Amino acid sequence: MSERALITGGAGCIGSVLAERLVARGDQVTVIDDLSSGRREHIAAIEPHRNFRFVEADVLDVASLDVAMAGTDTVYHLAANPDVKYAPGDPTDKDLRQNTIATYRVLETMRRHGVRRLAFASTSAVYGRAETLPILESAPTRPISLYGATKLACEGLIGAFQNLFDMECRIFRFANIVGPRVRAKGRTVIGDFIARLRENPRELRILGDGNQSKSYLSADECVDGIVFAMERAGGGLGVFNLGCEGGLTVRRIADLVALEMGLSDVRYGFTGGEGGWPGDVPRFELDVSAMARLGWHAGKNSEQAVVEAIRSSLVHADGGAACAGFRADDLDSRQPEGVAA
Amino acid sequence: MSERALITGGAGCIGSVLAERLVARGDQVTVIDDLSSGRREHIAAIEPHRNFRFVEADVLDVASLDVAMAGTDTVYHLAANPDVKYAPGDPTDKDLRQNTIATYRVLETMRRHGVRRLAFASTSAVYGRAETLPILESAPTRPISLYGATKLACEGLIGAFQNLFDMECRIFRFANIVGPRVRAKGRTVIGDFIARLRENPRELRILGDGNQSKSYLSADECVDGIVFAMERAGGGLGVFNLGCEGGLTVRRIADLVALEMGLSDVRYGFTGGEGGWPGDVPRFELDVSAMARLGWHAGKNSEQAVVEAIRSSLVHADGGAACAGFRADDLDSRQPEGVAA
Repeated sequence: MSERALITGGAGCIGSVLAERLVARGDQVTVIDDLSSGRREHIAAIEPHRNFRFVEADVLDVASLDVAMAGTDTVYHLAANPDVKYAPGDPTDKDLRQNTIATYRVLETMRRHGVRRLAFASTSAVYGRAETLPILESAPTRPISLYGATKLACEGLIGAFQNLFDMECRIFRFANIVGPRVRAKGRTVIGDFIARLRENPRELRILGDGNQSKSYLSADECVDGIVFAMERAGGGLGVFNLGCEGGLTVRRIADLVALEMGLSDVRYGFTGGEGGWPGDVPRFELDVSAMARLGWHAGKNSEQAVVEAIRSSLVHADGGAACAGFRADDLDSRQPEGVAA
Repeated sequence: MSERALITGGAGCIGSVLAERLVARGDQVTVIDDLSSGRREHIAAIEPHRNFRFVEADVLDVASLDVAMAGTDTVYHLAANPDVKYAPGDPTDKDLRQNTIATYRVLETMRRHGVRRLAFASTSAVYGRAETLPILESAPTRPISLYGATKLACEGLIGAFQNLFDMECRIFRFANIVGPRVRAKGRTVIGDFIARLRENPRELRILGDGNQSKSYLSADECVDGIVFAMERAGGGLGVFNLGCEGGLTVRRIADLVALEMGLSDVRYGFTGGEGGWPGDVPRFELDVSAMARLGWHAGKNSEQAVVEAIRSSLVHADGGAACAGFRADDLDSRQPEGVAA
């Protein structure tokens, strides 16, 4: 199948992989991205392609969104505030604007243009502290971060638009996405651990008690799951956890980073507490049986995805363009800004 | 206990009853209301009271919110877009602005003023089409209306603020609230049925198949439940269905209206379909055991609450100030605008 696709946030770590996939499939692809966290170099390889178009703009800008939306069959809405963590002094409305209001504008622009198909990048942060693991899509959604709350708000708006305007919408609640293009080094757990161990190979400070455990998925498999589900799932509204089975602790990630760096006898110092930062969900593991019923499952488990990301980070960390580490909604052991090199 | 309370939407059908209750209890009460749906006459009786203050302003106006918030212990956030139904041609962002963004501004103003306690008027519309009845608070929230979606967004924001800023928040998911001050005649099911039967006592058009069944609660009991829970429930975040056991069908409401008007042999015409309007949830019934565990339950069942509201409507329907009927989130059989007298 070939279609006209609009990818918001399409120069980001996941969106750019998706853009490549869809162009390769023969789709006409438009990317809208303001390059606030996405990077032009992520789409450099496909930018000359005649089936590719880039609109450099914020999705909050309705006029640009109109230009990008014209003639679209399917919207892949991945643009969002990638910075999950709230730190004292931060504005409290950034997530509201960049997630909820931006999503409203995408939906309203779709409605005006008669565009009916949507894939949406949501997050497992909508669940908050789940009472039972693994978490089913039908579990209560009680977010404890502004990021999770404003993504849940997007999901609600999508449900209402889907029902009122007869759209076909798929919501994907992502595990922590890892991969070579994911965020700059030093801001996320893999990049931070690598930077710190390069500075001091004998000691590593870890936020929380190190037992925070999360589910990880590589960006390429994330894209694979989205494309698979969009090709197969039926009409109406679908909500899918997108991850792999099982989880991985922060302590284990530290072990893996040390191992890949060839270090032994690294002494860990823990800041203590069960969560790494305010709004952190200390433990989650996704029930991925809904995607399995469609016929899709991740090829790599959390540890394999993380090891791959570590190796990629070690190769690229000294380079300029390539970023490495974790998507920012993996913040279990993220170090405060300015502390990491 | 005596406290300094701020009631947003405090000139509304529920807020004004709450204001009277809190003033009678000895609280210092500030009401902020822009009178877009609230009415000055609802607070006329308490306005001269020295413990009462009225700020006529939209809660979206942060400067006014600042004035109203100063010195507050507890916020009762009831201000909202009362018009649940989306009709083609309506703006799609009204609920987003008046529910979600307004709630964000209330929360942010609370944070800046160091106000920690919040009661929030949410809605059973957050559940959407529930798979099992009665609906527990832990049931999936899949709203199908903009009203439900934007109230769910408020709930998410409240959860995040509660967690990040150590607030104490109670979310009350209302059943359909009925009472003498609730909405103008002709716009809601009781008022509409009365108006139509006065015009033609032999025939009554009913939206949907008449089997839509909902849970009803009188405004005074709604206020009673909120006050009870705020006096007793502990810290953190609490979510409570606020209603009574069982439901009532639209057809039964038609019977009750005819009965109270002394009419017999009214012929019903049904427009058909299971829902009354786009975004309507055809059937809901709330599990109210969480409130029961606190020690509270409604004194009246749905039918008693509705009969009381019908009687009140029949008394006041010809008058000017008093409004009668249903709160607008009961729209199961609401007639299109302009059709009713």
